[in-house]
Amino acid sequence: MTTVLDYLVTHRARHLEQLNEFLRIKSVSTDTNFKTEMTKACDFLVAYLKDIGFTDIDVVETEKHPLVYASYHVDDDLPTGLIYGHYDVQPADPYDLWDSAPFEPEVRHGRLYARGSSDDKGQVFMHLVALEALMKTTGTLPINVKVCIEGEEEIGSENLYRILQDKKAQFDADFCIISDSGMVEEEQPTVLYGLKGFTGLEFTVTGPNRDLHSGLYGGAVRNPLMAISHILQSMKDVDEVVTVDGFYDDVEPLTDIERKLMTEAPKENYVMALNIPETVSENGYTATEHTMARPTLEVNGLFGGYQGEGTKTIIPEKATAKITCRLVPGQDPEDIQDKLVKHIEKHTPKGVTVDITREPLSAKAYKVDVDHPLIQQAAKSYGEAFNKEAVFVRMGGSIPVVEWIDEIFNIPIILLGFGTPEDRLHSPNESFPVINFDRGLVTLVDFYQQIALK
Amino acid sequence: MTTVLDYLVTHRARHLEQLNEFLRIKSVSTDTNFKTEMTKACDFLVAYLKDIGFTDIDVVETEKHPLVYASYHVDDDLPTGLIYGHYDVQPADPYDLWDSAPFEPEVRHGRLYARGSSDDKGQVFMHLVALEALMKTTGTLPINVKVCIEGEEEIGSENLYRILQDKKAQFDADFCIISDSGMVEEEQPTVLYGLKGFTGLEFTVTGPNRDLHSGLYGGAVRNPLMAISHILQSMKDVDEVVTVDGFYDDVEPLTDIERKLMTEAPKENYVMALNIPETVSENGYTATEHTMARPTLEVNGLFGGYQGEGTKTIIPEKATAKITCRLVPGQDPEDIQDKLVKHIEKHTPKGVTVDITREPLSAKAYKVDVDHPLIQQAAKSYGEAFNKEAVFVRMGGSIPVVEWIDEIFNIPIILLGFGTPEDRLHSPNESFPVINFDRGLVTLVDFYQQIALK
Repeated sequence: MTTVLDYLVTHRARHLEQLNEFLRIKSVSTDTNFKTEMTKACDFLVAYLKDIGFTDIDVVETEKHPLVYASYHVDDDLPTGLIYGHYDVQPADPYDLWDSAPFEPEVRHGRLYARGSSDDKGQVFMHLVALEALMKTTGTLPINVKVCIEGEEEIGSENLYRILQDKKAQFDADFCIISDSGMVEEEQPTVLYGLKGFTGLEFTVTGPNRDLHSGLYGGAVRNPLMAISHILQSMKDVDEVVTVDGFYDDVEPLTDIERKLMTEAPKENYVMALNIPETVSENGYTATEHTMARPTLEVNGLFGGYQGEGTKTIIPEKATAKITCRLVPGQDPEDIQDKLVKHIEKHTPKGVTVDITREPLSAKAYKVDVDHPLIQQAAKSYGEAFNKEAVFVRMGGSIPVVEWIDEIFNIPIILLGFGTPEDRLHSPNESFPVINFDRGLVTLVDFYQQIALK
Repeated sequence: MTTVLDYLVTHRARHLEQLNEFLRIKSVSTDTNFKTEMTKACDFLVAYLKDIGFTDIDVVETEKHPLVYASYHVDDDLPTGLIYGHYDVQPADPYDLWDSAPFEPEVRHGRLYARGSSDDKGQVFMHLVALEALMKTTGTLPINVKVCIEGEEEIGSENLYRILQDKKAQFDADFCIISDSGMVEEEQPTVLYGLKGFTGLEFTVTGPNRDLHSGLYGGAVRNPLMAISHILQSMKDVDEVVTVDGFYDDVEPLTDIERKLMTEAPKENYVMALNIPETVSENGYTATEHTMARPTLEVNGLFGGYQGEGTKTIIPEKATAKITCRLVPGQDPEDIQDKLVKHIEKHTPKGVTVDITREPLSAKAYKVDVDHPLIQQAAKSYGEAFNKEAVFVRMGGSIPVVEWIDEIFNIPIILLGFGTPEDRLHSPNESFPVINFDRGLVTLVDFYQQIALK
């Protein structure tokens, strides 16, 4: 172990320079102008994997950007870990809001500033450095390792599911590890053990066939804006309990153990940060419990009628609402979507018609048992490297990749992210703490070595 | 009487040519580019009034467009009628949707096409022709007449109230007559004996201080879109009964006599015309009764959050709704506005704040007794001229001018409009039936002569 840590120290400067080289590549997946840069990033990874000692490397072409697969098999009796990450980054626009050029990495106040330094190239690179250190010092790896680094995560990973399904045997593993998330606060090791699922739809209520003079027609027709308010109001009560029939039927209840873990996690001061009079959560649950582990139904957009300055006395033709739900383990996205549709149709008042468009994208929730040995080891390695006990959290957001891997392979997924709330993902001046690079590497090499011993 | 009718026939061609001259003037009040045309229209009226025989003429200047006043006093023992109208017109844009130029009057299929032919220059001109015919054939007028023709009606009549109040003695009369409305259907004489009042406000519900990621924050904050739906839903129930505390306290009930009159008025086929599944009205009232004589509360605009294509998973910062109410006799606009404000504040759920902006413009409802001798005579004259018995209707819309005259002078106001539903007010291809010009003149001369005899 000491040898591996020495190796990391000895080669630190080179590794950081290599990381800068990786970050200089403008691997923006959403913009076809950067196609050659995407190829460059792909080539960089392949070259590095070869240097590390991988020979089984497969560049899986797609209509957009290739996925890099590599495998190093040590022994059938050892566990196999699948490392997932992505080499594509968000666009850096608007460039004039960056203090240093987004693709010219710069360290300031202990942070490495560049697009992708946190999301996700910095963290992907860390995994490869950890593998390099283990390989060069021990001549092998402690476990079998498969690597899956795609180039389309920022644009929806549209080919990933198909690739994983078609090449299931090739990518199969005993667990997956992903470093594309973050700590709940600076210097607080965080093991993310759950994510919410997702489903949604949009619906439009139509009344008369044109906007009407509210004086002449008020009293003859149902106003679509009032009708849509009625429907929305029927879906969630003022105690934040979702009142869609059957919504909670399959929800896995929150255990006392988890409730305790949630009290230990640092809490955001919502009232101060968001300038709200008070937090509001489902009756019987704290804000932390609800954001982490209870399903939600939110209206993301609502509109109809006159939106300009002053008054316009109309009864509008129609009104539209966009709804999304975050789901918890137990809930099936299509089933919940069906329930939403049924509920809307049932609660549409007389005098108007309703059209519903289902959101095609959906995801099941993901949750791994906090007591799983791999989760426990990840927390231990992380905590020791950062000299602070790790907290276990479930996130309110969704990561479709996780749900797909869960569905296809049914393996534990360790979400071990080294990012921090100040990294400014998707924004100008993205950065990553250099100390998280250093300590994250210590975390990873220890984790791989420890799980080999189990 | 015969002499007057002969006069109208003899001078018909000249009158129509004069009307065309009046209509050619581009008297668009809202657009400063037409200022000289506004002056031209004003001059036209003054010249015509002089030709008729008026000597007491006062052009009341304002910051925008002058008001034309004229008075012809016959005898203190005769009633005095105040004729109100406006010489300004709506803009004619978009010009390319007109079949003939909006300020080049053209008769097609018995209709006179020009901006202002119905609203209101055609009808104002009719009143002056009637006065001319009476003056030239009898050497006097049957009653004392005052004329008040403003140039700012289409832009809110912002100076009218002040002028009428400041010059109350000058404009005072025993009744007012206005021809700026229409028949409920073609060739159906209509006496409008009531108008609704008006009040309104806009309110914004604010939650967090920025749009939030719905995954990370769903469960911690009150969604302003849900909160606004809750508030709106609390204001009117699914039976179209307004549930704002005290809303109906002062409402004058609908009498059986009026209910009977309403059944006699032609009804619009709402379902077919508006393509709605069914009409929806206040529990206990028909669509006709509710549109004519019951107060309403409508949401004219509602918006917040994401309105673009597809999905955006946010909890938005805020939501806004615009509300207007149509009032009936008994209700006070400021009192109702206070009740709306109180209700909104009371029903705003925890976790959000609300900001309310009251609409400054308001109007009381207007209603004159259907049995009033002047109303009865107007119906009789109208019915005889068109050879069809007149119907009595109350309109769901509001005309602030009427409410101001009612408030300042407390006199019966006869709304005797000769327009028709096909006139296309405020739209391209506005027109006015020539036959309504002819028969309307017969109506007016008969009315003035008959009321002089009472």
